[in-house]
Amino acid sequence: MTTVDPTLGVCPVPAAETEKVLLGHGSGGQLSAELLRDILIPALGHAGAGAGVPEDAAVLDIDGVDLVVSTDSFVVSPLFFPGGDIGALAVHGTVNDLAMMGAMPVALAVAYVIEEGFPIADLRRVTASVGAAAAAAGVQVVTGDTKVVGRGAADGIFVTTTGIGRRLPTARISAAFARPGDVVLLSGPIGAHGTTVLSTRESLGFETEIASDTRALHRLVAAMLAEAGTDLHVMRDPTRGGVASALNEIAAASRVGIEIDEQAIPVPPTAAAACELLGLDPLHVANEGCLVAITAPDAAEALLATMRSQPEGVGAVRLGAVVGEHPGRVLMNTLMGGKRIIDMLVGEQLPRIC
Amino acid sequence: MTTVDPTLGVCPVPAAETEKVLLGHGSGGQLSAELLRDILIPALGHAGAGAGVPEDAAVLDIDGVDLVVSTDSFVVSPLFFPGGDIGALAVHGTVNDLAMMGAMPVALAVAYVIEEGFPIADLRRVTASVGAAAAAAGVQVVTGDTKVVGRGAADGIFVTTTGIGRRLPTARISAAFARPGDVVLLSGPIGAHGTTVLSTRESLGFETEIASDTRALHRLVAAMLAEAGTDLHVMRDPTRGGVASALNEIAAASRVGIEIDEQAIPVPPTAAAACELLGLDPLHVANEGCLVAITAPDAAEALLATMRSQPEGVGAVRLGAVVGEHPGRVLMNTLMGGKRIIDMLVGEQLPRIC
Repeated sequence: MTTVDPTLGVCPVPAAETEKVLLGHGSGGQLSAELLRDILIPALGHAGAGAGVPEDAAVLDIDGVDLVVSTDSFVVSPLFFPGGDIGALAVHGTVNDLAMMGAMPVALAVAYVIEEGFPIADLRRVTASVGAAAAAAGVQVVTGDTKVVGRGAADGIFVTTTGIGRRLPTARISAAFARPGDVVLLSGPIGAHGTTVLSTRESLGFETEIASDTRALHRLVAAMLAEAGTDLHVMRDPTRGGVASALNEIAAASRVGIEIDEQAIPVPPTAAAACELLGLDPLHVANEGCLVAITAPDAAEALLATMRSQPEGVGAVRLGAVVGEHPGRVLMNTLMGGKRIIDMLVGEQLPRIC
Repeated sequence: MTTVDPTLGVCPVPAAETEKVLLGHGSGGQLSAELLRDILIPALGHAGAGAGVPEDAAVLDIDGVDLVVSTDSFVVSPLFFPGGDIGALAVHGTVNDLAMMGAMPVALAVAYVIEEGFPIADLRRVTASVGAAAAAAGVQVVTGDTKVVGRGAADGIFVTTTGIGRRLPTARISAAFARPGDVVLLSGPIGAHGTTVLSTRESLGFETEIASDTRALHRLVAAMLAEAGTDLHVMRDPTRGGVASALNEIAAASRVGIEIDEQAIPVPPTAAAACELLGLDPLHVANEGCLVAITAPDAAEALLATMRSQPEGVGAVRLGAVVGEHPGRVLMNTLMGGKRIIDMLVGEQLPRIC
């Protein structure tokens, strides 16, 4: 038996020439972060408000008016799922990205890329959903665009929404502002959106039991800022990559450690069952209707009460704390009494979830 | 011989249930206008600044600051072509949509939808082009998003750019502001972009002779507004659907007639030859680096001189005039001495041209 060096006779090609985009580059996890850090930010100058801190939106000062801008493409499959559809998701996701910077939505722009042959009835349904979600959020779609590509060049419809918001005066929020001693809050149960979309796509039969949590969170945020003001240090909606990725991003940007308690994590039984069947960690599953907030310790109790007084925050919990140890790392105090490292999502656990 | 009624035995299905999106719905011509009028605007409330007037961008008054917002998805195929690529096109197209409302760009948001397997090297190239075009236009990419879909669910990469601009104080521009007696100007030659993309896609061999005219026009617009101020009534960049569609939109929105002179239309010989081979009317071919302007007659001569003094307007010409007759119609005075109706592009002459 001989061993052949597999590289023999193979002309070495620089990695950069052969690399391909992977599904994981769109997951919101570690590959997404690397793509942003290594390719996009160097070429585009910067992204987000802070120096190198990836935020959900950018802050612009235009003639003294604090504007916040966010853009997101939505490619969810299937387009329609229990609890929502791509149109509602596109509006909620963008409104929430503005809200996570402490901004209320002022205007939305919506761009469609549609595959030839897409049913007009579905286009009407998606568009009605965009319109209804925008109206419910109190924001207007002010401009848009429609492109059509040939059959097979897209999958149904992709929706890109861009939001412009006005930042509330007391908002001083950034993923870089968490401090040791701060308290980590979560506005409600997790695990529903990602499992709903995936089980609907795969027809797993959960569809009658679970529904996406997609909804706009800006009113909850306005109430939180009215209560806590500058004591509210960080907000992040744990969409792609889930709570685990959101907390890791905050830990890295703030150079702090975060510790959460397993027993505090609110995973409804149906979502837990779906995660088990699908082999998913609920901490990595995308959510579209909850937020993580990090606040000064003295303000935590009153803020939690305020969150619970709002319809979007009735299920709010104290999830854990920010610590000075293990900066950049997120640990979980397990039910068994140990500690477990909570990593960012690596690769693509759930493609096309939003 | 018997004639069989083809509908016999066929259960009639309401048209709305069977209609499909056609390539022509994305052409920028008549089907696009119908889609906007019948489906999108009713569901979304309104689009654009005027009541039912489709503009390239929306004007927002936020705390007394006049902002202009525009969004566009770019799906051009191929991604790279003589004179430009999808990245430069996405920046120029959005900067120009802002400029057509008299606004200078303040910030850009860029969202990618990428097909799994897309070469990282191409992603770097597209992103470098976005960055270079933005830097050249003096505008920053402040935020972005990246989604990845599976193989076959998109074609390479789609780029959606949203621009935010500040309107210049003297800008009072709308497609609805053309008046009988006004003069129609065109900033330069037409026909290059669409023919370049199509001949590159089809490998027709023109690639060495023609190049896209893609470029940013905001500096030309600033010079024009400084010269003409409120005497400048309408601006429009004749992209999808070409000069013919732009003029028809203006005629319809302003309820005026427009007459142009065939001998004045600047079609370079290479573009004319490509159009002839491809069976295209140069008036329907997309451009990405010129604009149509409609101005008060007394201001026309000085404005034309100002346009010609700018690098983007050296080839500017007087194209025709606005008339009170045949409102909503565009006529061409032909070289033969007759008149010909210039219709909006119907259907999809050139899919995926931008």
